[in-house]
Amino acid sequence: MKKVAIIMGSDSDLPVVEKAMNTLSFFGVPYEVHVFSAHRTPDEARAFSLHARENGFGVLIAAAGMAAHLAGAIAANTTLPVIGIPVKSAALNGVDALLSTVQMPSGIPVATVAVDGAANAAFLSVEILAVEDAALAKKLSDKRAQDREQVLLKNRAVEEKYNQSKS
Amino acid sequence: MKKVAIIMGSDSDLPVVEKAMNTLSFFGVPYEVHVFSAHRTPDEARAFSLHARENGFGVLIAAAGMAAHLAGAIAANTTLPVIGIPVKSAALNGVDALLSTVQMPSGIPVATVAVDGAANAAFLSVEILAVEDAALAKKLSDKRAQDREQVLLKNRAVEEKYNQSKS
Amino acid sequence: MKKVAIIMGSDSDLPVVEKAMNTLSFFGVPYEVHVFSAHRTPDEARAFSLHARENGFGVLIAAAGMAAHLAGAIAANTTLPVIGIPVKSAALNGVDALLSTVQMPSGIPVATVAVDGAANAAFLSVEILAVEDAALAKKLSDKRAQDREQVLLKNRAVEEKYNQSKS
Amino acid sequence: MKKVAIIMGSDSDLPVVEKAMNTLSFFGVPYEVHVFSAHRTPDEARAFSLHARENGFGVLIAAAGMAAHLAGAIAANTTLPVIGIPVKSAALNGVDALLSTVQMPSGIPVATVAVDGAANAAFLSVEILAVEDAALAKKLSDKRAQDREQVLLKNRAVEEKYNQSKS
Amino acid sequence: MKKVAIIMGSDSDLPVVEKAMNTLSFFGVPYEVHVFSAHRTPDEARAFSLHARENGFGVLIAAAGMAAHLAGAIAANTTLPVIGIPVKSAALNGVDALLSTVQMPSGIPVATVAVDGAANAAFLSVEILAVEDAALAKKLSDKRAQDREQVLLKNRAVEEKYNQSKS
Amino acid sequence: MKKVAIIMGSDSDLPVVEKAMNTLSFFGVPYEVHVFSAHRTPDEARAFSLHARENGFGVLIAAAGMAAHLAGAIAANTTLPVIGIPVKSAALNGVDALLSTVQMPSGIPVATVAVDGAANAAFLSVEILAVEDAALAKKLSDKRAQDREQVLLKNRAVEEKYNQSKS
Amino acid sequence: MKKVAIIMGSDSDLPVVEKAMNTLSFFGVPYEVHVFSAHRTPDEARAFSLHARENGFGVLIAAAGMAAHLAGAIAANTTLPVIGIPVKSAALNGVDALLSTVQMPSGIPVATVAVDGAANAAFLSVEILAVEDAALAKKLSDKRAQDREQVLLKNRAVEEKYNQSKS
Amino acid sequence: MKKVAIIMGSDSDLPVVEKAMNTLSFFGVPYEVHVFSAHRTPDEARAFSLHARENGFGVLIAAAGMAAHLAGAIAANTTLPVIGIPVKSAALNGVDALLSTVQMPSGIPVATVAVDGAANAAFLSVEILAVEDAALAKKLSDKRAQDREQVLLKNRAVEEKYNQSKS
Repeated sequence: MKKVAIIMGSDSDLPVVEKAMNTLSFFGVPYEVHVFSAHRTPDEARAFSLHARENGFGVLIAAAGMAAHLAGAIAANTTLPVIGIPVKSAALNGVDALLSTVQMPSGIPVATVAVDGAANAAFLSVEILAVEDAALAKKLSDKRAQDREQVLLKNRAVEEKYNQSKS
Repeated sequence: MKKVAIIMGSDSDLPVVEKAMNTLSFFGVPYEVHVFSAHRTPDEARAFSLHARENGFGVLIAAAGMAAHLAGAIAANTTLPVIGIPVKSAALNGVDALLSTVQMPSGIPVATVAVDGAANAAFLSVEILAVEDAALAKKLSDKRAQDREQVLLKNRAVEEKYNQSKS
Repeated sequence: MKKVAIIMGSDSDLPVVEKAMNTLSFFGVPYEVHVFSAHRTPDEARAFSLHARENGFGVLIAAAGMAAHLAGAIAANTTLPVIGIPVKSAALNGVDALLSTVQMPSGIPVATVAVDGAANAAFLSVEILAVEDAALAKKLSDKRAQDREQVLLKNRAVEEKYNQSKS
Repeated sequence: MKKVAIIMGSDSDLPVVEKAMNTLSFFGVPYEVHVFSAHRTPDEARAFSLHARENGFGVLIAAAGMAAHLAGAIAANTTLPVIGIPVKSAALNGVDALLSTVQMPSGIPVATVAVDGAANAAFLSVEILAVEDAALAKKLSDKRAQDREQVLLKNRAVEEKYNQSKS
Repeated sequence: MKKVAIIMGSDSDLPVVEKAMNTLSFFGVPYEVHVFSAHRTPDEARAFSLHARENGFGVLIAAAGMAAHLAGAIAANTTLPVIGIPVKSAALNGVDALLSTVQMPSGIPVATVAVDGAANAAFLSVEILAVEDAALAKKLSDKRAQDREQVLLKNRAVEEKYNQSKS
Repeated sequence: MKKVAIIMGSDSDLPVVEKAMNTLSFFGVPYEVHVFSAHRTPDEARAFSLHARENGFGVLIAAAGMAAHLAGAIAANTTLPVIGIPVKSAALNGVDALLSTVQMPSGIPVATVAVDGAANAAFLSVEILAVEDAALAKKLSDKRAQDREQVLLKNRAVEEKYNQSKS
Repeated sequence: MKKVAIIMGSDSDLPVVEKAMNTLSFFGVPYEVHVFSAHRTPDEARAFSLHARENGFGVLIAAAGMAAHLAGAIAANTTLPVIGIPVKSAALNGVDALLSTVQMPSGIPVATVAVDGAANAAFLSVEILAVEDAALAKKLSDKRAQDREQVLLKNRAVEEKYNQSKS
Repeated sequence: MKKVAIIMGSDSDLPVVEKAMNTLSFFGVPYEVHVFSAHRTPDEARAFSLHARENGFGVLIAAAGMAAHLAGAIAANTTLPVIGIPVKSAALNGVDALLSTVQMPSGIPVATVAVDGAANAAFLSVEILAVEDAALAKKLSDKRAQDREQVLLKNRAVEEKYNQSKS
């Protein structure tokens, strides 16, 4: 199976990014984690992206805050799908990272998820790998069914607690 | 090859969405276009999404404006990758559609591109299909090289016109 | 009397939603509470909405955060009045939920209240039920009179404390 | 049948508000149109609101731009449901009117629709009147069915035009 | 001397408003404090505003949060200068109150100060009363001189602490 | 009577500022118009402000766009009331000018009106001058009555045109 | 004298960027113009930046819109001062470009000017070159004096036209 | 070597500004720290700016919050490069300071860095001084190399901890 790369602009993004690792582990999708900065180690980010496909990667996830150029910088050097996680920082509530990640020019897309939405970056990468992998697609369906069950359980708990008049 | 579906919430989104069609045609990726509304034809949107994988689709693109629920509504009924195009409308400059599309809850990602970024929705879907398709990946690389050439040409034109003192 | 349904997208919305329950209890309006997710249990949300009128509901309240599609998803399947509560989440201060709830397309309105405005969602539902229910309308007027009295009391307390020079 | 009042803060709001009139006419719901300004004719706005219920109104719609206080000023003097239409003006894209309309304090709700969303204000008022009026509810369902048909027709037109490879 | 009225929409605004009281006390300007709600006690707010001039007031200050209509509601019933303090609340960081206060229609101005800027509301009211009161204008100049001195002192302290190389 | 100064940061603000001139002329309030730039002619702006009181001015109005420092720069050099008009410019819809004008630090207030709200700047200055001028206060009340009459007339026109069923 | 480079992300930025060329020509500062895209020609952008200092450049100006990464990408490969011009594009009014340009991480600054503020990018680069160039500093002072004169002239024209009562 | 001035609008900005001092000390660039308020000590701010060049300064850094006029007020009185640090304050998340600092009119640029980006203000001033100072330019390159090393180290630490499957 193709690997997923989780790249963060700074190791301070680890608490956000761990949700992506957990989700990929859940699905048994192999992944690597790296710290590459679009601005402090641009050459490493570039080299990694240029060779990502031949090195067995299928999807690249990039997490960054503020003027979040990382996902775009990676997308500029690969034609693999790149997923961007805008990370919320002290000022501006993550709006800066969201717009810096999503407003990419034509030809170089970044698949952007919600601010701090690391779990969904992983889900999306699994969905991408599952396009041609029926077993993985089955796991996604099963997870959806589990999530659905959990909401139904919570619904039942809430209904029992609050809907006394219901019979 | 898997097909791409381009779904718009209203046929008034056609001028935006046509850029996606042109891009998919350029890459020779088969696609279908549909008008499904998350709110006016929810059952059709649901049915299409539920059966999209078995009907040969690999990626679903959804374009909608205002409270743009379409991409999310489709993502709720499939584990295929769903790409959302936030469409700019009269008020609020597309911020409403952007946030309604990108801020999805955990487990149901929407790969969001720029406001009115239909071409990139297509590029992203080609990148997704190319993960396991070396020929398509080659086409993407070739297109990148062409785009690069075009920027280099424009650079040369600009340099020639403005940098008279250079030499 | 018609019932009110309070639907939340996740049981994490309970602290917000409890103000709606308290208000409905105050007015003696029967209500039910449910957890339906627009994205994780779309079929349950749909089924509930489709049959809400025949099941004795008069108003449906939906609370959700981020890309808050719940109110719209419910409105798509009923012609009962649907009230949306945008719930504030970690990033973006509730602006995402507000715009995702209020910017609905023509024909499928969502009556949107303030961010985290659960009490007002309940007040609005009581006002709706009171259009044809004089006794309930009387209760609303009485509550307004009580609220007015409370402000007048607070005014007197503030005046006494701070306006020593007055008289 | 109870009447709907459409109140605008200025006759310059007429082009926006006419969509509400057309929708109410379509449903055969009686309505009145008035120009009351929260700031220039506060007494008339107050008097109208105070007596609206006894004068046969069931729902009050208020449209205003900028610091859009009209809906709130009316809601302060009635316990009828009040629907607010934030009107877009030259600067700020309607964000000012949206926030001024929706962020109401507890106990005095305004059911807010989209910026310039006059048609939906009318739809919502019809939904409110239809809670206890089965014939009107039927009309709403029929309109939904028509809207659905129209989207299906547009879908078919789009499919025929663009999906040549389909068959 | 004319009095200043400090009106707040809720006694929860007291912590903000106390800075206005302190500033007025500093200048020896007589003031009264009141709690009037634009929505819960509109008649009291109206009555107070209508008679404010004849009751010896020269300036009215109104503090309110969210859909902050209070200053505008007061301005609608007096031609005295009305100063609005937008109060920050839980969601939206005070942007809602700022826009609801400042974006008034032509003919009914509200002199708006910064979010939670209660001290400046008082300074502005003193400036207004000082237009025709040379003694009060002198006090304002003296206060400016004091504030200037304080900044100069802080500057000296900072310079001494950090500018060791300076000689 | 004290004069009003209307200061604009650039003569390109004239179309906005003319509404202030017209309003002051209507009330027979003497005014002067000047072009002073906070950044290009800071000394002239400073000198004018420093001597404004002794030169017979009662209120200073300042209009500026973008990083609108003019009103604040003037307020720093006078204790007369300073009214700021945020002027909308090409980008950012006037939000930049609004925040640059209204968010003043403690002790140096700027009475801010709506974006491009030049008429209200004039109304506010008349209200300020009328605090101690009963004749001018009378003119303000008369104007309010006229404005009210005009809204009532428009209301009647709208009622006659649209409320045929009423009688 | 060191040269200034004006780099734009696309030749569609030329109308914005021409104001920078004109300003540099006015001051007799040598410049070159280039089209390098952070995403389409990242290697050319990188190579240019890496060698800019040794090639005689003193300041680099970068203009880009949307997710404007260009200035940051250049700054990552040089320690020359980099000035960023956020370019306004169709959606979002330039807020995306502004935040993508200004919110740079520690160690890699981009000196950001106003949205579409190309003239100021040139002025700033001249100011930077003038730190060690007294003749150029003199030209800047002279230009300031000219700009001041022009405002004074406009002031006189406005005063003459509107202040008839003055004298 | 030319000195850098760090000017803050209030000594409450010291915690933000200290990062600028530390960075300048690291590079051995002489600096002075001052507290000048654009509004409370405008004359001192003006005098300092007017004479900054002759007093041996090469770059001026100004930090201020809210309606952050300080950098602009300083830029109006010098042709030295002025760097603005927008400081985040209680309300509005620093957006007010950012727009007040960056949106300067033509001819008077302020080189704006990120909200609370004091370290980068210092880096930028070092870059400016290094344009004509090869030794300082060398120090900047060395620091970049160190920063790069640190990211590489963090990358290795992260890779070792998380990429167990890698061999």
